[in-house]
Amino acid sequence: MEKRKINVGLIGIGTIGVGVARILLKDRARIRQKKQVDIVLKGIADISPKALKRIPGGKKLYTRDAQKLLNDPDIDIIIELIGGINPAKQFIRQALTGGKDVVTANKKLLAYAGKSLFALAEKKGTDLKFEASVCGGIPLIRSIQDGLVANEFDSLYGIVNGTTNYILTRMEETCEEFAVALKTAQDKGFAEANYKLDTRGEDAAQKAAILARVAFKSAFPISSIYREGIEHITPQDIRYARDFGYRIKLLAIIKKLGTGLQVRVHPALIPLQSSLASVRNEFNAVLLNGDQTGRLVFFGKGAGCYPTASAVVGDVIDLARKRQYGIPSAAAENNIRQNRFPLVPATEAKLSYYFRFGVADRPGVLAAIARILAANHISIAAVIQKGHAGRDGVVPIVMLTHEAHEKTVRRAVTRIDAMDMVKKKTHIIRVVHLP
Amino acid sequence: MEKRKINVGLIGIGTIGVGVARILLKDRARIRQKKQVDIVLKGIADISPKALKRIPGGKKLYTRDAQKLLNDPDIDIIIELIGGINPAKQFIRQALTGGKDVVTANKKLLAYAGKSLFALAEKKGTDLKFEASVCGGIPLIRSIQDGLVANEFDSLYGIVNGTTNYILTRMEETCEEFAVALKTAQDKGFAEANYKLDTRGEDAAQKAAILARVAFKSAFPISSIYREGIEHITPQDIRYARDFGYRIKLLAIIKKLGTGLQVRVHPALIPLQSSLASVRNEFNAVLLNGDQTGRLVFFGKGAGCYPTASAVVGDVIDLARKRQYGIPSAAAENNIRQNRFPLVPATEAKLSYYFRFGVADRPGVLAAIARILAANHISIAAVIQKGHAGRDGVVPIVMLTHEAHEKTVRRAVTRIDAMDMVKKKTHIIRVVHLP
Repeated sequence: MEKRKINVGLIGIGTIGVGVARILLKDRARIRQKKQVDIVLKGIADISPKALKRIPGGKKLYTRDAQKLLNDPDIDIIIELIGGINPAKQFIRQALTGGKDVVTANKKLLAYAGKSLFALAEKKGTDLKFEASVCGGIPLIRSIQDGLVANEFDSLYGIVNGTTNYILTRMEETCEEFAVALKTAQDKGFAEANYKLDTRGEDAAQKAAILARVAFKSAFPISSIYREGIEHITPQDIRYARDFGYRIKLLAIIKKLGTGLQVRVHPALIPLQSSLASVRNEFNAVLLNGDQTGRLVFFGKGAGCYPTASAVVGDVIDLARKRQYGIPSAAAENNIRQNRFPLVPATEAKLSYYFRFGVADRPGVLAAIARILAANHISIAAVIQKGHAGRDGVVPIVMLTHEAHEKTVRRAVTRIDAMDMVKKKTHIIRVVHLP
Repeated sequence: MEKRKINVGLIGIGTIGVGVARILLKDRARIRQKKQVDIVLKGIADISPKALKRIPGGKKLYTRDAQKLLNDPDIDIIIELIGGINPAKQFIRQALTGGKDVVTANKKLLAYAGKSLFALAEKKGTDLKFEASVCGGIPLIRSIQDGLVANEFDSLYGIVNGTTNYILTRMEETCEEFAVALKTAQDKGFAEANYKLDTRGEDAAQKAAILARVAFKSAFPISSIYREGIEHITPQDIRYARDFGYRIKLLAIIKKLGTGLQVRVHPALIPLQSSLASVRNEFNAVLLNGDQTGRLVFFGKGAGCYPTASAVVGDVIDLARKRQYGIPSAAAENNIRQNRFPLVPATEAKLSYYFRFGVADRPGVLAAIARILAANHISIAAVIQKGHAGRDGVVPIVMLTHEAHEKTVRRAVTRIDAMDMVKKKTHIIRVVHLP
């Protein structure tokens, strides 16, 4: 088969776009030699030319108008790196409709509009690849879809948000409050000014939605995915967790339950010796439990210019090879016509729980709490009651339970919080025992 | 493009072969639906039909004669799972020459004869895939070659032998001697009767050779790869290492040094908090340091029927899709015509070292040892001298050094071992600080 050039158009030159452009321009010969495909970056579009100075040789490829690339019949592949819903969605639709393949790192768009985009790609015989959208530097999507294709997965546990993992690590190491650790994360470039998407679990929920599609062939509206952030976690919780032998991590969990699937994002106490507990700072890791391979863990940088750019370029090379050899679209694989599993509400989970009660400093409080828990068939696994009352006269009682139904737990805690001697709303954190 | 059946012949039905046959027979429809390719297991060859009873539907596919499959013009892909050099090599050569693609898990053959086999595959336009040959359950080869293709690697550190990792874990947990832990490993099926390939580092060296080819584009004769096993490690070493904050693991290390490459296999003290230190029992893990992605770790089962079978099936699916869509061979990628890097002798390494001296129980010994080390410009980082003489009158002195040249270290230890008051040959274990 005659070799031809594969032309690529890049839309969006933020940090990742700059990395992608640099790799494609610098490594063209290396890629050709390694993968027998000649990839040419033909155009770069962005509303601002500012980042061009960081792309040697980029200036002559620049256009302010993305339409120039989208309408160029010589361009085979569009890389969308502007993020957000609009106009990214319109650009991608336009590219797919025009017979171009698309590579994106846009997790939000995929989580919100994946359904229509994959359907469009399948209909048009084009491809939409997105390795960089989840755990940037880790070749996770392709491992699930190709290397592990002989597996059915039972569960997936992921630390998929580097910002929150950095904040939690920092809180543990320095005993800083959330707000202080957040500030440090922002100073170091690990958290954005608009940090709430990260700290409230929204970003992780978007990634969970994508992973449920890829690994469990089930597409759920992002709004239906339970999420809880880390803003209410205190250094005290982290210290008590440690006393019990656990570390607190923000987890994305996808897990079969009966005939359905749970998909949820929340902070969790995980055993200190578990493989995800040692994932520190801005790193990501995903634990997959396959029926053939058993437990697998992928660990690496989830974000950052070059890790993510590396994933984008991997996808571009795949698509270029497909173009060159006339391989048909694989979009059908991600166009979920019917969910493999129905979504099980998060309240159906049966877990252990960590409670931190803030109570009045007088006798009988623990007994009263224990009585309510017992009445709800929640048994106590461990208790710490070592603090003294602070200036507010409130003493912490910290507790781990055995497994109980979330519904029952919520009911019991509502009753406990209604008691006179309970001075603060009870902190509840789930305990997750990884496979 | 019209879809056709892709016919597969399986040679060798040991544990992995059985797993592969079961997956291909049971999951044909699932694979067709997931990956749009129809893979038919057309024949199974083995000198013994014994394992057929574990393959439902396998009997009617059986032949005693591998030539039946190798000469069948309808067979597209041969899976070689007999292991060892002969007749596996001849079978694979025959298949490749006859225009068939090959999937193998045969690390020994690839390490010894990879050069001629990949050259043959490239010449014939066929493919030779081998994901299962290194860290069975972990999709490592494909991640390096596809997902991480935009990366240059600086170093690779792997726990790639499950048997020795199981033994070392067991020795740490129970303080058993090597021979006792080995017996347990054999009883549990984690070590073979002929265990020496594992415990002497031969198996890990074969995997290192394959990884040097894949990740560093350099093919070295297996005999040139430095290897040292774990048979001389004692529970005392493991305990002392722990006192210093380290754990002992058998590592395969590939690392750029100057313009060359070190490839070596040996036990090493690695910091307790490093990501590879928590890899326990029969699990494998590989740490890769890429210029774009930074540090990546892949963790999973390195052996076992289904993890390895899963990797074989992943390769078969790739090849079937390539056949279906007429994609040319990728064998050139692994046919190293010229090494990217020359091999640097292991003695060129500059590392820290762990010494365990067995000395006479009298004053002045430590001073004498320290004097020799100082004369060789080896500085001491930490010393433990807490034991008392056993019945043999020998006291251990345990020491960690700062970085020193291996050559110098060997020279100094030879001088120390020649001293009267040194009663036993000094144990030397390298200390490795992972990125």
